[in-house]
Amino acid sequence: MADTPTEADPDPHEEIMRATYRALREHGYADLTIKRIADEYGKSTAAIHYHYDTKDDLLTAFLDFILDQFKDTVHEVETTDPEQRLELLLDKLLVDPRDHQDLLVAILEMRSQVPYNDQFRERFQQNDEYVQYLLRTVIDQGIKTGVFDDVDTDHVAQALMIIVDGARTRAVVFDEEDSLETARQTAAEYVTAALVADD
Amino acid sequence: MADTPTEADPDPHEEIMRATYRALREHGYADLTIKRIADEYGKSTAAIHYHYDTKDDLLTAFLDFILDQFKDTVHEVETTDPEQRLELLLDKLLVDPRDHQDLLVAILEMRSQVPYNDQFRERFQQNDEYVQYLLRTVIDQGIKTGVFDDVDTDHVAQALMIIVDGARTRAVVFDEEDSLETARQTAAEYVTAALVADD
Repeated sequence: MADTPTEADPDPHEEIMRATYRALREHGYADLTIKRIADEYGKSTAAIHYHYDTKDDLLTAFLDFILDQFKDTVHEVETTDPEQRLELLLDKLLVDPRDHQDLLVAILEMRSQVPYNDQFRERFQQNDEYVQYLLRTVIDQGIKTGVFDDVDTDHVAQALMIIVDGARTRAVVFDEEDSLETARQTAAEYVTAALVADD
Repeated sequence: MADTPTEADPDPHEEIMRATYRALREHGYADLTIKRIADEYGKSTAAIHYHYDTKDDLLTAFLDFILDQFKDTVHEVETTDPEQRLELLLDKLLVDPRDHQDLLVAILEMRSQVPYNDQFRERFQQNDEYVQYLLRTVIDQGIKTGVFDDVDTDHVAQALMIIVDGARTRAVVFDEEDSLETARQTAAEYVTAALVADD
């Protein structure tokens, strides 16, 4: 469904992002070319270059696009209960990616290029800060309402991101179907130990 | 000291591995060439090709070399106390790499190539299996002697590797000096919660 434009007059930016997504899943980061994205887009490379000067500019926009998609799914979380919100957030981070192994592969390649690519670094940092902010907010809310212990919120949020990033790396390197599942369980154990240990 | 040959008649394999290490730290994976390794080695590219057909063969041997180095440092751990052994093992995994940020960068690049490189995949899997074996052994020993709870050893070993790999990925992507430190603390908290919770 994500690949099917439903509007009469589709936004070219969004169309190119969806084409990039399909091209990345099919060819991977190293073999990605503007030509291959254009083929998925169904237009010429000039039509892509009209919007993006370089492949890196396009991929940087793609990292923004992924974050926006993630924000949309987070906004769907309607519960205000901190324990439930934290569980659902961890599901978004560790259960949803199970259907997107090819995307995890491409993202790990882009991550490994961060030491040589400031645009990528900046986007990955922004994305990480946003997710950590969400985690801190829900943990703080739980502390305020007394369901969580009074912990070092920064540390717990960082610890959870370490678990998330470890699972995503291992899902690629070891092609382990259960890396994300094991990590989801590890995150749940950690949350229980760190946040509700004194109950 | 690791870069200084001390033997009168150095093993060419080991010399080439040390040259590869220096070249990787200086140039990174993407810009690594046999020429650059040869420059570090102080001999011709032919002298390298005499031992290794391709750059991938050489880098695969390098991944073996890193594991051997790790095995050597693990063998230095003399204590037989399971709790202490586990602590020291986690130090080897999360404290020692702090001085080798450049190597972490190169390793993440090689890891991201695993989906396209079976030799790399095999070596990373072997290394991971070896470390998990060490973790399981010490945890099992602790369970037998009654200092650890009777847990799912496989799961705890995998959970700890998720934390290790998450920290190493984040150390590269976010250039965070404290990723490994935060992960070391997270691992300690997890060990306490999973293994000695009932004390």
